Amino acid sequence: MKKVYIYDTTLRDGSQSAGISFSVQDKIRIAQKLDELGIDFIEGGWPGATPKEDEFFKEARSIKFANSKLAAFGSTPSVDSQVSNDPILKGLLASETLYVTIFGKTWDLHVKAVLKTSLKENLKMIGESIEYLKKKGRRVMFDAEHFFDGYEENPKYAVEAIEVAVNAGAECIILCDTNGGALTSRVFDVVREVKNNVNIDLGIHTHNDGEMAVANSIAAVSAGCVQVQGTFNGYGERCGNANLVSIAPALRFKLGFDVLSELALKNFTEVSNFIAEVANMKPNDSQSYTGKNAFAHKAGVHINAMMKNSKTYEHIEPDKVGNTRRLLISELSGKSSIIAKAEERGVAIGKNPDEAKKILKEVQALENEGYQFELAEASLILLMERVYSVEKKYFTIEELRVIVEKHVDGKIESEATVKVNINGEIRHTVAEGDGPVHAMDRALRKALNEFFPSLNNMRLTDFSVRVLDEKAGTAAKVRVLVQSQDENTSWWTVGVSENIIDASARALIDSIEYKFLKDEEGASKK
Amino acid sequence: MKKVYIYDTTLRDGSQSAGISFSVQDKIRIAQKLDELGIDFIEGGWPGATPKEDEFFKEARSIKFANSKLAAFGSTPSVDSQVSNDPILKGLLASETLYVTIFGKTWDLHVKAVLKTSLKENLKMIGESIEYLKKKGRRVMFDAEHFFDGYEENPKYAVEAIEVAVNAGAECIILCDTNGGALTSRVFDVVREVKNNVNIDLGIHTHNDGEMAVANSIAAVSAGCVQVQGTFNGYGERCGNANLVSIAPALRFKLGFDVLSELALKNFTEVSNFIAEVANMKPNDSQSYTGKNAFAHKAGVHINAMMKNSKTYEHIEPDKVGNTRRLLISELSGKSSIIAKAEERGVAIGKNPDEAKKILKEVQALENEGYQFELAEASLILLMERVYSVEKKYFTIEELRVIVEKHVDGKIESEATVKVNINGEIRHTVAEGDGPVHAMDRALRKALNEFFPSLNNMRLTDFSVRVLDEKAGTAAKVRVLVQSQDENTSWWTVGVSENIIDASARALIDSIEYKFLKDEEGASKK
Repeated sequence: MKKVYIYDTTLRDGSQSAGISFSVQDKIRIAQKLDELGIDFIEGGWPGATPKEDEFFKEARSIKFANSKLAAFGSTPSVDSQVSNDPILKGLLASETLYVTIFGKTWDLHVKAVLKTSLKENLKMIGESIEYLKKKGRRVMFDAEHFFDGYEENPKYAVEAIEVAVNAGAECIILCDTNGGALTSRVFDVVREVKNNVNIDLGIHTHNDGEMAVANSIAAVSAGCVQVQGTFNGYGERCGNANLVSIAPALRFKLGFDVLSELALKNFTEVSNFIAEVANMKPNDSQSYTGKNAFAHKAGVHINAMMKNSKTYEHIEPDKVGNTRRLLISELSGKSSIIAKAEERGVAIGKNPDEAKKILKEVQALENEGYQFELAEASLILLMERVYSVEKKYFTIEELRVIVEKHVDGKIESEATVKVNINGEIRHTVAEGDGPVHAMDRALRKALNEFFPSLNNMRLTDFSVRVLDEKAGTAAKVRVLVQSQDENTSWWTVGVSENIIDASARALIDSIEYKFLKDEEGASKK
Repeated sequence: MKKVYIYDTTLRDGSQSAGISFSVQDKIRIAQKLDELGIDFIEGGWPGATPKEDEFFKEARSIKFANSKLAAFGSTPSVDSQVSNDPILKGLLASETLYVTIFGKTWDLHVKAVLKTSLKENLKMIGESIEYLKKKGRRVMFDAEHFFDGYEENPKYAVEAIEVAVNAGAECIILCDTNGGALTSRVFDVVREVKNNVNIDLGIHTHNDGEMAVANSIAAVSAGCVQVQGTFNGYGERCGNANLVSIAPALRFKLGFDVLSELALKNFTEVSNFIAEVANMKPNDSQSYTGKNAFAHKAGVHINAMMKNSKTYEHIEPDKVGNTRRLLISELSGKSSIIAKAEERGVAIGKNPDEAKKILKEVQALENEGYQFELAEASLILLMERVYSVEKKYFTIEELRVIVEKHVDGKIESEATVKVNINGEIRHTVAEGDGPVHAMDRALRKALNEFFPSLNNMRLTDFSVRVLDEKAGTAAKVRVLVQSQDENTSWWTVGVSENIIDASARALIDSIEYKFLKDEEGASKK
């Protein structure tokens, strides 16, 4: 098996994503995760760009990476600066990483229009800066910026630029599709032509502006590249960078390259979600391989076939990337989907199609109201429990009041009052909170804690609100999804109402009920 | 220029997306939009699958499509059924479309494991059903389901299946990568091989499970396919279908095929957003070509270069697909980005770098608190106005109170009280609403309407809430983004607070202030 190296730039190019802003600690956490995974190179940032970047490299020095090499990123010096006195190169050296990656211009348009220097001067800058970094004991990789665009317009110059980098001591030349618009067949041909002309390890760095970054990276490896640069979840400026989540499994499982280990790939779903969490980005549910829906089946005919043979509608086994198969229940589902879902839960309702029908009907009625169970499985499970099991009603809310007041000095108060009936025992509690949901959560816990102490281990981790576009034009309904987690797992619940407080309360109450149900089932299994 | 036909299946395969559920009216609206755009074929649905599908085809009959042909979708009959008596074929005929597309099995595994019939019987079903539909006056296209997987395992049978379809009268054979795992180079080779063996128009239908659906579709066209099936925004089951939004511009602008018109492509951003809106899906901001961030530049060096020559960081001109360039302001931005943004607004602050510095500092401070201006440009503009213009404070809120009560009978009441100061005049108003945000909105309008009657033309169209993960572990801050629109445009504003009501109020107030600012600027331009 031929080795292909993974060079992760989530911390550098990924942080250019609209909406991403990593703290130093975020970057440290991600770097450690990537190291655990066995990523070959981690590009940590651009030293000197902001104080945060410098702090990261300083903190990173005290970390012992078991598998990964940390690389610092920068560029050729500013025009007219001396290599020994250039702030960019100084920053790179101050980062104290063994590996440094610098980018240089290989597209003549950029040399003229952006650097505003001569083609010759640009080549000199590339050569001198690499030589200087080598002299200082660094191992240097060269990002040939805009290589594919440059190659189309002035192939001689583009190749000359990388030859200069090779002669100066760069040990890997990364061909970059910086603007992300290259076509797959061209990437393959150009890599092959360069490979035939330049005797050095080649890497590939693509962007997703044409929605082809993954295919382009794979074509480049097929044509001879031995390093792939990309980011987790495809984060990056504009349409993102090449998505390592889709590239690595394809290279190993479909093309037989030696890239990461099978064990590492089994952690891909977890790592993909972890990085989304640290980046504070909503996970992309339809992301290939690791998305929540990547192996989720909705159409009746598909579910039917899947139950006969999973290979019929899955391109790889979800388990290989740590993902799981899901059967979605919606108004399009047939009875067989409900039965399959029940079997997934270990409940045999197959013998009673009437119950399946009853559940389906209730799902359809609630989806008409705006509920969406595909996204909130815990609420669906509670609904199924109510239909075909003894109803597990742990508590009921009899009264709920929320008051929020904001005064002229900007001070805000939030207070929630709940009257809760726990099997006939009434608890009437009130609590303040940092907001109305927090206040409700605290008031509910005050009422329930003595009966259900396990509530202490559960916390709300995310919620989302969506205005449902009502055709009638009246004030819109909202759908609230709440994610909760305890020490073992996390789950989503849903609430719909014209009132955001009520919708939140519904989702919150479902999340607590699901916690109790889950604990009870766990206890009965032991 | 060689013609390539676009076959849209947003209404059929796209509706299999987790989270999508079209009403009949939704489907009609989308079909009309696609017709306006000049899409060649619109797959309307699977008649007979649900009453909704039948209703759609019934309603569609009264619509005169100017450009598009409507197609009904179905499959070969159930095993052992007579073509003349088969419910699937009956449904197709009842839809009364001239074009019908049926899928049949071309992968032997599916014939054996799912249909549980003989390979021979499957071929017979394909032939007989196409012949029957032809006899009934229909023009038939044949979706060769799982063709690429079938071709790898039993190429002889896969090709035999499509030969049967051709001989029975199918006028186009669509090669399907149903499981979405095919590699681009294989798609190219297989299409070419089939093209050399079968004398008929070929189409391509791919899924995105390997994140290569766009590249695979383009490779297939390069190898000889003349029809591309896909969906808008790549909607579809699991990881989605091939995204027409990325395919059509690449085929026309990069490969020179005759596909849609240049005018149609100029409407792509609008149509992509329209379909997301009808589907009630959040637009994918990083979507290629039409995403909000597709031409958004964040890195300081990029913005610098873009200002010199836009070709340096854009693979096509955004205008060609109706999109626009955006410069993102964030803590990574330099002063030059702020100045560029101000110039975008037609304000010359370039001469006063101190003001740019001041804005940048305030942006950084607010982003530290959790604000995000990349997503809420209207709030950024208000912030800039406050710094470098005469402050336009149209009104101030002196007191705000919201009460939500839910009673044992399920009845809910929401009431908001505001005390508003409009240039010294005080209005103290109270209103009920369907929820607290609605109540606040109404109370504010009650107070402001007499001063600003244009408020009547503005409405809130979307809002999103995000819990900001606070490292300290205290009750989380939330960020609320509000989208508003009037008859001319739409805009996003942002509010951050530990209190969801307060965060909503801040975003709401910004959205109203932006409306007034915008109206005033519009008026001064006239």
